[in-house]
Amino acid sequence: MAKSQKLALRYEGKAKKIFETDDQARYIVEFKDDATAFNAQKRGIIVRKGEINNAITATLYEYLECNGIKTHYVKKLGITEQLVQAVKIIPVEVIVRNRAAGSFASRYGIEEGDELNPMVIEWCLKSDALGDPPMNDATAVALGFATPEQLEILLDQSSKVNDLLQPYLHDRGLELIDFKLEFGVDLAGEILLADEISPDTCRLWDVSTGGSLDKDRFRRNLGGVEEAYLDVFHRIVRNTHA
Amino acid sequence: MAKSQKLALRYEGKAKKIFETDDQARYIVEFKDDATAFNAQKRGIIVRKGEINNAITATLYEYLECNGIKTHYVKKLGITEQLVQAVKIIPVEVIVRNRAAGSFASRYGIEEGDELNPMVIEWCLKSDALGDPPMNDATAVALGFATPEQLEILLDQSSKVNDLLQPYLHDRGLELIDFKLEFGVDLAGEILLADEISPDTCRLWDVSTGGSLDKDRFRRNLGGVEEAYLDVFHRIVRNTHA
Repeated sequence: MAKSQKLALRYEGKAKKIFETDDQARYIVEFKDDATAFNAQKRGIIVRKGEINNAITATLYEYLECNGIKTHYVKKLGITEQLVQAVKIIPVEVIVRNRAAGSFASRYGIEEGDELNPMVIEWCLKSDALGDPPMNDATAVALGFATPEQLEILLDQSSKVNDLLQPYLHDRGLELIDFKLEFGVDLAGEILLADEISPDTCRLWDVSTGGSLDKDRFRRNLGGVEEAYLDVFHRIVRNTHA
Repeated sequence: MAKSQKLALRYEGKAKKIFETDDQARYIVEFKDDATAFNAQKRGIIVRKGEINNAITATLYEYLECNGIKTHYVKKLGITEQLVQAVKIIPVEVIVRNRAAGSFASRYGIEEGDELNPMVIEWCLKSDALGDPPMNDATAVALGFATPEQLEILLDQSSKVNDLLQPYLHDRGLELIDFKLEFGVDLAGEILLADEISPDTCRLWDVSTGGSLDKDRFRRNLGGVEEAYLDVFHRIVRNTHA
């Protein structure tokens, strides 16, 4: 079988490009070094981010697949590229929160770091123009963004991903504070975990120091951004293949 | 039995004062003419609003009680005062939406007036300081604002209130676009509908003209504010007692 090649650019997001291939059931994802925050009001470059997030996502999606989560991931193609199943993204971003942080903490006037028990799963409408506003089940259904059956699958799968990632990351010295997932529907109508899981889309705190090892270092001008991404890369990818 | 008298001021809100009485199980609510909007950034007076909202709330709560909704309402005491059961307010405001309007329409980028099918019930945290942010079930529970059992009762009762109010108001030429409810827990631990239902807390559109007959006339500087409140008063209170 011929090697998959990038054909038409299908979509360019803030951190990734999605290309069509000669197989309508497969896309190629290219991870970029571009970094944005606060709905793209803050922009920059994180050197080697594309390479790091491609590798971390590949490693985590292989781990999740092995543990029963259906993902769009097929295989890594190159340093910043991976082959995935073609899906239509459901415009409902899933935020899983184990501790309060970021917009959640400020929205409800609570301390960043407060444990959430039980953990909280939120939906946000995937819309840069509207700033990804949070919404509840009834709103997602009434406005036609998802069906009740889809929301039930998203809730179940996201909760399982959290249960799988928390101990996995903790073994690597990382506490999973919160993360964003996106899901898509493939050509056969099945819901697959899509997008990425990386320091762009997770808050990861060092278990020993409590320091941020994720995009908050960029958002909040904490310095050591590249070092943090590389640290997470070594803990997840190097450890796995060691 | 002696007439209930206002003792210590227990709470002063934007539109009402709550007084203790010599019976610890009863409060007196005094409706004010003060009007605020956009989280009290806009302030004013709507002449006779206290009287009108007291009468409308009394009429609607009597109607709801007759139809199986448990409310805090006991009886009207005077032109701007009513006797209610003492409750501790659950800090979860319930917003029932039959059509998209106001913050909901702008938050999700949809047209004001779009029908919501099925209708949407939202929770907002009752907090002026935080601007009453929307929250989902998991958040309300994790942050300790309500129990899952309380949320189930709020959802059920709010849906029933909507089913009762829609035809009642439609018979009076008013379309119920959306409204806010608050609930409280009485001394016996029972959940009662509290607060008020009035043109301050509902969007009411004239069935024939589509014009606003509610606080949007004040919020949006549409003029005819007092006239709109008086019109709703006549349609609900006068019609009922005619």
